Amino acid sequence: MPLSPTAYIFPIAGLLGIVATIYLARITLRNDPGPPEIVEVSKFIQEGAAIFLRREYRIMAVAAVFFAIVLLVALNVYVMLTFIVGAVTSVLAGYTGMSIATRANGRTTFAARHGPIRAFDVAFSGGSVLGMVAVSLGILGVSSVYLLFSLLRVVPDPLSVMTGYSLGASFAAIFARIGGGIFTKAADIGADLVGKVEVGIPEDDPRNPAVIADNVGDNVGDVAGMGADTYQSYVDTTIAALILGASATTSHGAPLGEEGLLFPLWILLAGMLGSVVGIAAVKVLAWREKLGPEALLRLGMVISGAVTLLGIWGLSHFYLRDLRAFFAAASGLIAGIVIGLITDYFTSGHPVDRIAASGESGAATLIITGLSVGLQSAVLPMLLLGLSMIAAFNAWGIYGISLSGVGLLSILGITLSMDAYGPIADNAGGIAEMTHQHPRIRQITDRLDAAGNTTAAIAKSFAVSATAAAALSLLTAYSEATHVKSLDIRDARVMAGLLIGGALPALVSSMTLTAVGRTAGVMVAEVRRQFREIAGLREGKVPPDYQRCIDIATRGALGQLLLPCLVAVLSPFAIVFTLGREALAGFLAGNLVTGVFLAIFMANAGGAWDNAKKLIEAGAYGGKRSLAHMSSGVGDTVGDPLKDTAGPTLNIVVELVAAVSLAFVPLFLRLVP
Amino acid sequence: MPLSPTAYIFPIAGLLGIVATIYLARITLRNDPGPPEIVEVSKFIQEGAAIFLRREYRIMAVAAVFFAIVLLVALNVYVMLTFIVGAVTSVLAGYTGMSIATRANGRTTFAARHGPIRAFDVAFSGGSVLGMVAVSLGILGVSSVYLLFSLLRVVPDPLSVMTGYSLGASFAAIFARIGGGIFTKAADIGADLVGKVEVGIPEDDPRNPAVIADNVGDNVGDVAGMGADTYQSYVDTTIAALILGASATTSHGAPLGEEGLLFPLWILLAGMLGSVVGIAAVKVLAWREKLGPEALLRLGMVISGAVTLLGIWGLSHFYLRDLRAFFAAASGLIAGIVIGLITDYFTSGHPVDRIAASGESGAATLIITGLSVGLQSAVLPMLLLGLSMIAAFNAWGIYGISLSGVGLLSILGITLSMDAYGPIADNAGGIAEMTHQHPRIRQITDRLDAAGNTTAAIAKSFAVSATAAAALSLLTAYSEATHVKSLDIRDARVMAGLLIGGALPALVSSMTLTAVGRTAGVMVAEVRRQFREIAGLREGKVPPDYQRCIDIATRGALGQLLLPCLVAVLSPFAIVFTLGREALAGFLAGNLVTGVFLAIFMANAGGAWDNAKKLIEAGAYGGKRSLAHMSSGVGDTVGDPLKDTAGPTLNIVVELVAAVSLAFVPLFLRLVP
Repeated sequence: MPLSPTAYIFPIAGLLGIVATIYLARITLRNDPGPPEIVEVSKFIQEGAAIFLRREYRIMAVAAVFFAIVLLVALNVYVMLTFIVGAVTSVLAGYTGMSIATRANGRTTFAARHGPIRAFDVAFSGGSVLGMVAVSLGILGVSSVYLLFSLLRVVPDPLSVMTGYSLGASFAAIFARIGGGIFTKAADIGADLVGKVEVGIPEDDPRNPAVIADNVGDNVGDVAGMGADTYQSYVDTTIAALILGASATTSHGAPLGEEGLLFPLWILLAGMLGSVVGIAAVKVLAWREKLGPEALLRLGMVISGAVTLLGIWGLSHFYLRDLRAFFAAASGLIAGIVIGLITDYFTSGHPVDRIAASGESGAATLIITGLSVGLQSAVLPMLLLGLSMIAAFNAWGIYGISLSGVGLLSILGITLSMDAYGPIADNAGGIAEMTHQHPRIRQITDRLDAAGNTTAAIAKSFAVSATAAAALSLLTAYSEATHVKSLDIRDARVMAGLLIGGALPALVSSMTLTAVGRTAGVMVAEVRRQFREIAGLREGKVPPDYQRCIDIATRGALGQLLLPCLVAVLSPFAIVFTLGREALAGFLAGNLVTGVFLAIFMANAGGAWDNAKKLIEAGAYGGKRSLAHMSSGVGDTVGDPLKDTAGPTLNIVVELVAAVSLAFVPLFLRLVP
Repeated sequence: MPLSPTAYIFPIAGLLGIVATIYLARITLRNDPGPPEIVEVSKFIQEGAAIFLRREYRIMAVAAVFFAIVLLVALNVYVMLTFIVGAVTSVLAGYTGMSIATRANGRTTFAARHGPIRAFDVAFSGGSVLGMVAVSLGILGVSSVYLLFSLLRVVPDPLSVMTGYSLGASFAAIFARIGGGIFTKAADIGADLVGKVEVGIPEDDPRNPAVIADNVGDNVGDVAGMGADTYQSYVDTTIAALILGASATTSHGAPLGEEGLLFPLWILLAGMLGSVVGIAAVKVLAWREKLGPEALLRLGMVISGAVTLLGIWGLSHFYLRDLRAFFAAASGLIAGIVIGLITDYFTSGHPVDRIAASGESGAATLIITGLSVGLQSAVLPMLLLGLSMIAAFNAWGIYGISLSGVGLLSILGITLSMDAYGPIADNAGGIAEMTHQHPRIRQITDRLDAAGNTTAAIAKSFAVSATAAAALSLLTAYSEATHVKSLDIRDARVMAGLLIGGALPALVSSMTLTAVGRTAGVMVAEVRRQFREIAGLREGKVPPDYQRCIDIATRGALGQLLLPCLVAVLSPFAIVFTLGREALAGFLAGNLVTGVFLAIFMANAGGAWDNAKKLIEAGAYGGKRSLAHMSSGVGDTVGDPLKDTAGPTLNIVVELVAAVSLAFVPLFLRLVP
């Protein structure tokens, strides 16, 4: 198909997005970094995070080289190249976002001297860098690779090599998510169990040896990890939509022209515009002082959604002249936003109160109530995902399903900004505590941090919805590409695949939970040792050895991330070569159902326990030092690795497995009868 | 098809089984009931259980009448009649088993005077009544209804009304399981949280007001509930196999003759014989004093399995002359036994030690480790279920899948006997404590009780495997009967059904967990009140008011069982009337995958926590009153409602939904396009 000039719009828009990212980074960095003590702590976090990420990327690079060779041998050199581009852009997005976030934290602390609005503005600007860099790189990367292969004509169909790109993004994501997840929770649990519970010093107290590691963890987990996670969904969904577009037809039954084929990218542009408007709206409205940070951020998401919807409608109506695209994309976008609001309810509304109340009869009942809330919170999102899927399918068949996913992901710019805002505000509070700022400062950062918890929960649910959308699109693309006549669930291979695929999330979760537990155990021992052996530490006269705790978290994360990654990457091969291509399709579907369920359950149970503790600490049910408070501490610690390690890892596992399967279809067609 | 005389063998065999049941009941009751104090406590438990069950059955009867009218209007009078027979036989099996179990408990306590072997013999004989009555009634009921409708010729095909029978069994089961599950855990948690933790009296102390309710709970949950649960699987699988047999063909491509059609019943006979041999072997070998109770019971299961396998081989080779039946049935039977042994490992092997060890750093890490073990324990069983399904399908297509299920369930006689042995031994210990027997007696009953924990875990995993097998058979039968061309997972309705079905287990689990939590809260308040208000209770001078605690558990269970039952029963209608028949098939599959996963996870995590506590109480990791012990108490309490309420309920939900769907296919074909 000849390339029309409109195709050049996408890389240009991607570049413009990068310009906007640079602008946001500059206005973030223009803020005063504050006095030397703030700069020093911030720098410690910055360096800890950067060192960890670089070591993580080194391990990933070795694995990636090995995998690239496999791609070269099994498929072709172009898939290998796009794989590398996908992985490199993912790393670039995560690293950039994390770099700015670790520089925005101290600046937020210092800005709090000028009041909450100024501090909010710094934290949100810092966070929006991650959001904008991810979508800009996504649009730039996907469209450039497509254009390049269209122009070079080295392969008959440029789409045939795009699967490598999506594979690269997923590959980078699993390392970032599992590594970051283990690091952050091992540090957090280690800091809490000894510092808060045994020694009885407050959160973020500078005497706690694991406190810096804890702050580093927030950045490598919630910023770099989350960035890589959603970047892969963004890229995977778009590529799956491009592939499925090739076999879709217009309402007259003709194949889609280039305009139709590239329409998913137009949806992304609408979403990028919507996100920019949303980000601007949050920054402008913040200064009107009427809304709290939670309401502001929620409003930003809704504004972005509305602008994006309008944009997609306009594009469908005037440009594509086919409203089916609008209905399909809207079904995903609306489902994503509603699921976000449901999550908000379960992690900050009445259910949290129920959990807190049950803490009055002890830790066990608080855990049971939390499990029950987590289970309940998964019901409506799964129902909505199912219904939006049917709506999209009714609008435009299987192509509609992938458009629905693209619609949902189009507003990634704003949701990822909201997410990255959280760890910046959290770090700002930590830095305030460690540098002994005035209590008023800490109050402001605490207020911002509380909003961050809510947006983190919304962003997590968005990441899960995005995963579901992406995995559905990939599964559909795999099922189309693999040329099997029937994937009927009456076929035992499909049904067996469903059962076996349903077990994969359990396997990977048990591995990551075990890794966190083991590393946290080492961390606990080290923190205890420092309090025991370093004279004057308890009194605050001598500083602890922060570096050793960072080292423990780093080694624990890096040493234990490979096994779960390997299991996830290799499982599709194990299935397809023993049970066949039909079983693999069932495997992907089973993995999707259990994975999405567990991811929502873990994220929301964890978030609700966290907020139940905060509720009690604010004075409810006896307040601090009551039985309810003690119980809620147990709940929070149990929830931490669920919501920040095991749950998020499932996003990647669900998607990576599908991306691997799709990319290797040509090999499977050759080797598997 | 004309009936051959061989068809009369099955009701006769069923009647013979009932004779054997009566014999087992008689030898159980022939044992000395002991002195008046033992008789009195045993009678209290007996009556509490009987009263609860009768009230539960009354509620069920009202719901059943309503449902029967629906069946009459929507389908026909014959389906309604078989529905009633299915429900009544289920009630009969559960009530009989429970009656004998509540009479065997005191006799076991008293028999312990003559040593452990005698006590074991009484408990095991008592338990085997449940096992034998369930399989005998199952074979008698299914075959009689089939024969009757064949002879009467009121319907063109007797199989068309058999779905009512399976529906009746499932209907009775969900009431028994949810009611029993809420009762038993509310009483247990109430007794533990106040008695053991707050007041500091030992387990089963007669001063604890909830102690009798706790013992009643074991019987209504683990005996009557478990009996109804596995009875439905037994019946459902057999009926699904009979239905699928109608469209199966011999190796020459001809339709199955009557011999082939009734072959599933022959497999059940082989299993009944195997179970009788296994039960006899356990009773004989017990007196050789070489093996502990765990090994004895495990051996009994393996002997039963071996005899049954041999029987099925003989029947396939000499009678049916088609070894495909043997391979299909063997795949299920072997998978079931191996899954049992895997469960045994996860709930009493090294993982339990890991959980106990993690208790040394607190309750939170113990919970995390337990969750991780539970997740891990689900992986291999799901893999085995998938593989055995493929093996069965390769042997004999979809008919093979149902034969595999029948093979697995054929040894229900022995596994259910092992299961019912547990609560009898547990009750015997409670009665010893309450009647102040010599410590030696309590030691013996504790030893028997410990074995009961292991067999309970194995039996639970068997129940889950049975559920999976039954639901798969029902799903296959539904998919065949519903006459849709394709159930391709590329069809959005199927895939959306998968996602929505995957959410149902979460919904029902959250409901049952909430019900337990709420009732346990009332129980805790009542037990606290009695200790506060009844003067002399703490000193053991005045007895507590046991009856009020029984009433609270009864009211809590009966008041809260209807909603989850309704959700489960009505969900297939909601799906099929809004999203269609294809979506319902997907819904069943999704419900199966998540339901089986959650059921295994909950059962094993709960079992492992329970045994971790027992391990610590036996002296490991600091023993009683250590931090590890306190942590393990939290784990045990969290695990209790998971393993005894929410988890087992899922067995029923997974199966009931499939049974409802299958039974109402004629209606759906009429009303849903």
